[in-house]
Formats: sequence, structure tokens, C-alpha cells
Amino acid sequence: MKNQKSDKVTPRIASGFMELLPGDQIAFNSMLRIIQDVYESFGFLPIETPVMELADVLLAKGGGETDKQVYRLTKGDTNLCLRFDLTVPLARYVSQYANQLSFPFRRYQMQRVYRGEGAQKGRYREFYQCDIDTISDNLSVSNDAEMPAVIYEVFKKLQLPDFTIKINNRKILNGIFELMNIVNVSKDILTIIDKLEKIGREAVESQLLTLGLDYKKVNLLLLFLSLSGSIGAIDSIIDQSLGRDSNVNLCNGLEEIKQVINSLEAYGIPRNNYRVDLGIARGLDYYTGTIYETTLNDYPEIGSICSGGRYDDLCKFYTDRNLQGVGISIGLTRLFYQLKTIGAISSNKTSTSRVVIAPFDYKDRIYAMQVAKSLRSSEIPCEIYLDDAKLSKKFKYASNLGVPYVIVVGDSERSKNTVTLKDLRTGEQKSEIPIDLAIATINWEKNHR
Amino acid sequence: MKNQKSDKVTPRIASGFMELLPGDQIAFNSMLRIIQDVYESFGFLPIETPVMELADVLLAKGGGETDKQVYRLTKGDTNLCLRFDLTVPLARYVSQYANQLSFPFRRYQMQRVYRGEGAQKGRYREFYQCDIDTISDNLSVSNDAEMPAVIYEVFKKLQLPDFTIKINNRKILNGIFELMNIVNVSKDILTIIDKLEKIGREAVESQLLTLGLDYKKVNLLLLFLSLSGSIGAIDSIIDQSLGRDSNVNLCNGLEEIKQVINSLEAYGIPRNNYRVDLGIARGLDYYTGTIYETTLNDYPEIGSICSGGRYDDLCKFYTDRNLQGVGISIGLTRLFYQLKTIGAISSNKTSTSRVVIAPFDYKDRIYAMQVAKSLRSSEIPCEIYLDDAKLSKKFKYASNLGVPYVIVVGDSERSKNTVTLKDLRTGEQKSEIPIDLAIATINWEKNHR
Repeated sequence: MKNQKSDKVTPRIASGFMELLPGDQIAFNSMLRIIQDVYESFGFLPIETPVMELADVLLAKGGGETDKQVYRLTKGDTNLCLRFDLTVPLARYVSQYANQLSFPFRRYQMQRVYRGEGAQKGRYREFYQCDIDTISDNLSVSNDAEMPAVIYEVFKKLQLPDFTIKINNRKILNGIFELMNIVNVSKDILTIIDKLEKIGREAVESQLLTLGLDYKKVNLLLLFLSLSGSIGAIDSIIDQSLGRDSNVNLCNGLEEIKQVINSLEAYGIPRNNYRVDLGIARGLDYYTGTIYETTLNDYPEIGSICSGGRYDDLCKFYTDRNLQGVGISIGLTRLFYQLKTIGAISSNKTSTSRVVIAPFDYKDRIYAMQVAKSLRSSEIPCEIYLDDAKLSKKFKYASNLGVPYVIVVGDSERSKNTVTLKDLRTGEQKSEIPIDLAIATINWEKNHR
Repeated sequence: MKNQKSDKVTPRIASGFMELLPGDQIAFNSMLRIIQDVYESFGFLPIETPVMELADVLLAKGGGETDKQVYRLTKGDTNLCLRFDLTVPLARYVSQYANQLSFPFRRYQMQRVYRGEGAQKGRYREFYQCDIDTISDNLSVSNDAEMPAVIYEVFKKLQLPDFTIKINNRKILNGIFELMNIVNVSKDILTIIDKLEKIGREAVESQLLTLGLDYKKVNLLLLFLSLSGSIGAIDSIIDQSLGRDSNVNLCNGLEEIKQVINSLEAYGIPRNNYRVDLGIARGLDYYTGTIYETTLNDYPEIGSICSGGRYDDLCKFYTDRNLQGVGISIGLTRLFYQLKTIGAISSNKTSTSRVVIAPFDYKDRIYAMQVAKSLRSSEIPCEIYLDDAKLSKKFKYASNLGVPYVIVVGDSERSKNTVTLKDLRTGEQKSEIPIDLAIATINWEKNHR
């Protein structure tokens, strides 16, 4: 697309991609780093996989909704695809290096994935997933309990608005389906249930009726799905309605979810940050046990901001070894967009510098470099305005970037080994003070505000 | 590629891609974070651009060697390319958001780029570039001096073996070409000179002769290119041989390089970490002033590990605004491979955990979770072995991962609110000590070793 008036190409990006200005990128990166730090504090190990994989490997599972969205490319006679999630690459990685990994294998991976779906507001074709998974031959339910502990730490450290981690167990749903004799349509039911929050109870009701369920069954099912809160109370309602002991899935599911709930207290998660909720189902059919969704209490319309669950036989397309896993995923690109939309992200930090050093004249640049070196030795990120410009322009530059301090150095400062420090927020100026005093002033704030 | 004995797909990746085991990934990530921290300490602002861009935008410059290596894909009727460097996306970004950016615009960008070149040892089709650039309408040479200061800080913090930042100025080379009347073949000469370190003096000599230069000129040229060390001495040799005052380029180039060298001392860079070297040329024809290469003194065969320079009119394909820039790039994927090869990277840290908490029995898991919470509150990353296994297997897991400490909790510890702490490196064990003492012991080491 050439510009009509000149021979220039109009600078633009393809639709469906998020690109941020530096201030927002700083906020985004700080979220990434917090998530990474929490994942590491739980001992998860980092991996990164190539953005493109061999088509026959990545699409081994084949079919499905995802298939149509995959970005494909060829190089020579090699068919390649861009990764569309981090779970398939994980399965491939674990299968490929199984002999060099220690199990339980606890890995985190924070990379962008690619889906060529129709671009719409808040849906991106390139987006970060921040995943953790624990993989082992024989994974105890205690691992399922660890996931909400990680989610809680992440969202607390991210200072998100009030959130609730909703926990369910696929076995409970399956047990209910079995006892109600509706197993034959269970996959369809899960898909419909998954839309409960989005399309509302009435729509779900009518969709369930079209599956051939009678009105009584639909009502009973929706009663169960509306259960949330104390697992003891939920257990007794199910027991009274269906008789839980007669069904293995139901027994196991209720037992597992109790174990998970008991552990959450040990991890120190406040009672109001989690809840058993039989209404969450996760559409994906590969979950087999515990499932999670996390929502912001005051913004239900955003939907789940961190989901996951327990699954069996992760590597079945690549190896005979039967490995189980449990994991969660944060879709950070979409979350960032949503948090911006509701005003929950402050971009008041729009620079990495805490100080702009403004040499009065080009002759003062060498001295400015020495001052910068001293600041950096004291862990103060700073930059020097190195171009020819009036002092007022240098101040304006600092102020536009939201940098809190300007240090001016001129003849007088240079000859006396001092600096003039100005706090742009208060206007307060300390003229010709020793460098060490300036450093102490700036660092005092870092430690006390 | 199906496995012959079963219906499994052989797990593998395409050739030319680097994929690391977690221990190496930890080392790699720590390098990434050090580079990022140094870039930010100089006030560079982060940006990230989409992995794919519109073909007409990304290839606006057109032609060239790069063009053949570009990964192309189509989605609907949109032609897209994967980014092959970070400079073209920077030019597009700056042009697109010019009104929302503050100039001088100082940005860093650390992302992977894609080149479908023939895969060979140490050359990758997907590799990280870690770039900084300063962009402005009227960029003083002082900005050129800042780049070696950043390179020095990065490589010092990365604890690389002895390195030298070699500095040259394209104007000096151009001035010499002008005075020697060989401007007509200057591009070819630069390409040949760029291979000096790789193919040796003799091969360069014979290639220069085929350009039509006579033997005397080739010798004189190679004399100049072999000059390195004090800029004063270099200046006087050039002056005596060619008479520098008669050429504007030569005058300006020598003046600029002197300014750069004078600044390096102010930045506190030790004298033995930089050198003027007229022999470095950088093949790329867009450099117009200062150029940099960085080499490891004891491993010249590795070539430059950080290069860059000054260029004009960054955005000419997208806008009429004439912006100048200066920048450097670290090709981290290749550098990591090289450092591994020469044994300069220690992968002794192969886990993110400092402690594996081993519950004696499954009944002790809840207490283990409380202990883990205490450790994490004291900034000690740790994990719990949550599966059923003998204690010996739990110890083996910790030891395989290189985790220094194991904490065992059983009946006795649980009832007395204590832990048993074992240092796997020394074998020293402290039985049933208070949690606080265990924390103090582990943290003492962090602060004192």
C-alpha cells in the first residue's frame, strides 16, 4: 500500500495483533516478570520451544476447531506450522527428552502462540500464554491443589481486583451424567454448560432440551450446576438426590475435590478467593479430573482469566509412556487488554529511567557521563540527554516520559563536583549538592514510598 | 513421520532451531534478564513488535540477500512475512507512532527473528536479537559513545571472558577511499574487508587485486586497515600518508572517533576493553559513521558477538522525516551456543528451586505446604515432592536437579512444628530444627557465598 502523495509505504501492522507504546509495554513486561517470578518461586522450570514445528508433529492429534486456525508455511519441501498453544509443544518436548528430564517434571513456559481466527476486539491472532504444568507417571491429587496456590500468588502480586478461583472436578460431572443416564450426550452437554456464564441460563436450558433431555432432567442438571460453596453441603445435596455411593466417578470426584479444598488452607489462600463451583466445565474434552477457572468478581463479563485442569495421557500421540498432567494457563495478552479496558492498569510509569541528566551545554556531557556512572553504580537507572537542545526542551523530554527527576550539570556543578537536582513532581530544586546526596535523596524515595 | 513399530509420531523439531533442556534454559534466561536490566539502567524503553508483518511493509526496502531467507505466509488474501531482524520493524514502529513517542527515542527490543538460511552448526533459523537504538532528528556523536558503555556493562555483568570493543568510523574508510581514488569499488572493498578476520590477509589481498586495484594500493589499504590502538598515532600516520586535511570525510571521521574515545573514559570503561581498529568495516552498506564490533580476546574464531553502528534516514521507506540512529545488536542464541562450546557457561544451576520439601508420607503433605509457604514468604523458591514415593527417590529427584537442600517433614517434625534440613552438597543434616532456623540457614548462604 503506497501512500498516494509519495512513494512511501504506509507504516502499519496486520489486523489482530497487539502492539504497545513503551509505557504500556513497561506495564506488560512487569506483569510478565511477576508471573515468571511466582512460577519460579514454586520451582517450575523454564522451557522455550520453537515458534514453528513440523506439521505432522504439531498436528498429530489432527482435526478440530484449532486446525483451521493454524498458520502454515513451507520451506523447501518441509511443512511447518506456527504453534497454536503451548500444550502440544509440551507433549512433544516431554516425549522427545523424557530420558533427560526429572519427573515429576514441573515446567513453565511463557511464549506467544498463533491462531488465525477472525480478529475481533480483545481477540488476538498472536497472544502470550503463561503456562505451568506438572507431569508425571503417577500424579497425586496434591498436585491439583498446588495450581490454585500458584494462581492466587500470581494474581495477588499482580494486584488484580477481587478474584475467585472456581474449582470443579470432571469426575463429578461424569458421575452425575451416568446416574442421570445422559452419558451419550455428555460431550455436547459440556460444550453447552461451558457457555452458561456467556449466554445465560435460559439459552442453556433450551439448548439442552434440543439434545433430547426431558424437562425434568434439564432442571435437575441445572440445579446441580448451580451448586457452589461448601463442598460438604454440595456433597449431601448430590447424595440425597442421586445417592453418591452407587457411582465410582462421583465418589472419586468428591473425594478429590475435598482433598484439593483441604490443601488450599495450608497454602494460605484466603477463603474468599476460591470456591467449588459445579457450573464450570471447560469445553475441552481432554480434562479428566480437577478443573479451574478464575474470574474477576466485579467483571464477570470478562470471563475466565486463568483456566486449566487435570488430564491423562499427555503424550499419547508420541510415545507409549502414559504421563498424567495438571496445569493452568494465563492468556496475558487478552488479560492485559481487559485490564486496560476496565482501568485496572496504571501506566503512570512510562519510562525505565528515574533520572534524566541534562548537561547545560555540550561541554558538560563528559561530566554528565561520570554522574550517570555514579547513579548506575547505586542502582539508579538514568539517561543523559545527549543532543543539542535548550534546557527547557530537556526538561520537557523528561516530563513527557514521566521521569521523576532531572539532574542539571553545568560549569559550576562540573568544577565543584556537584549536581543540581530537581523533582519534577513537586518542583523542588536542590542546587549544587554533592552527587552522593542526590543519590541518597533518590534512593530514599525508592525505599520509603 | 510415523514410527515404524507403532502408530506414534516421532517427536522431533525442524532443523536449524535451538531448543534447550531446562538447566540450559535457566542459564539462557539469566543472560536475557541481565541484558534487559542493563538496557533499562541506561533508560532504554522496551518495545515488542508482532512476529509477522505485512509483506509490503516489511519488504519495502526490497531485494538483497535477506529477501530469499524470509519466511512468507498467507492468510486469506493477506501476504505476511516473519520478521528477519529488529531494525525494519523499528523503522516501521517509529514511523507509525512518531507523534506519540518522545525523541530522542531510546528503545530496546529483545525478540526472536527468523531467517530460512541453510542450517549449519551454530547458525539458527530462529534466534534472539537483543537490540538497542537511539533515534533522533539530530543525533550528536555523544550518543555513539554511549553504545560501547552499554556493551561493556552487559558483558561485564554476563561475566564473559576478556573482550574487546573495536571501534571504527565509516567516514574514515570513505575518506581513505576518496584520497586513494577507489570510491567506485568501495562497496566491494567493504564486503571484502569485512571478511579479514575470517579468511585472512592473503585471501583479502587477492580478492582486492581482482577488483582492479594495483599492488601498491592494496598494500597501502591493508596498512591502513591494520592500524589499531591510539587514535592520535593513527591520525598522524594517515595524515603523513594521505594528508588528512584535504578530505572532509577523513577530518570528520577522525574528529568523531576522538570524541567517542574521550567519552569512554568518562563512562569508566577500562582501557583494555576497547580499541580503535580501522580493520572493522561491517558489510552492511547502511552504516554511515561510527561502527562497532566486539570480540572475545581468546576466541577470535567466534567473530563479533555484538555489532552495530550509526546510520542515516532510518525511516525513509515510510516517512519523509529524516531520522538518524545509532544502535547495537547482540545475537544471543548464537552467542549462547558459542559460549557453551568454549565451556564459558556453567549450567551448575539446573533448577529454579533452592529446596525440595519431601513429606515422609502422604499424611505430611499438608504440613509440607505450610512449610513451603513460610519459605516462599522469605523469598526462598522451593517445591514439594507431592507424589507417592520412597524418601530415597525424593532425595534422588532433588539431587538430579542440582537442588542444594532437602527438607524432610514427618510425624515428629509436624507435631513439633520443626523441619529436618539436609545440605545435599556437604551431607550435613540438622534434625528437627525450627522452620525459622532452616530459613535463616538457607538465606545466610544466599547472602554470604
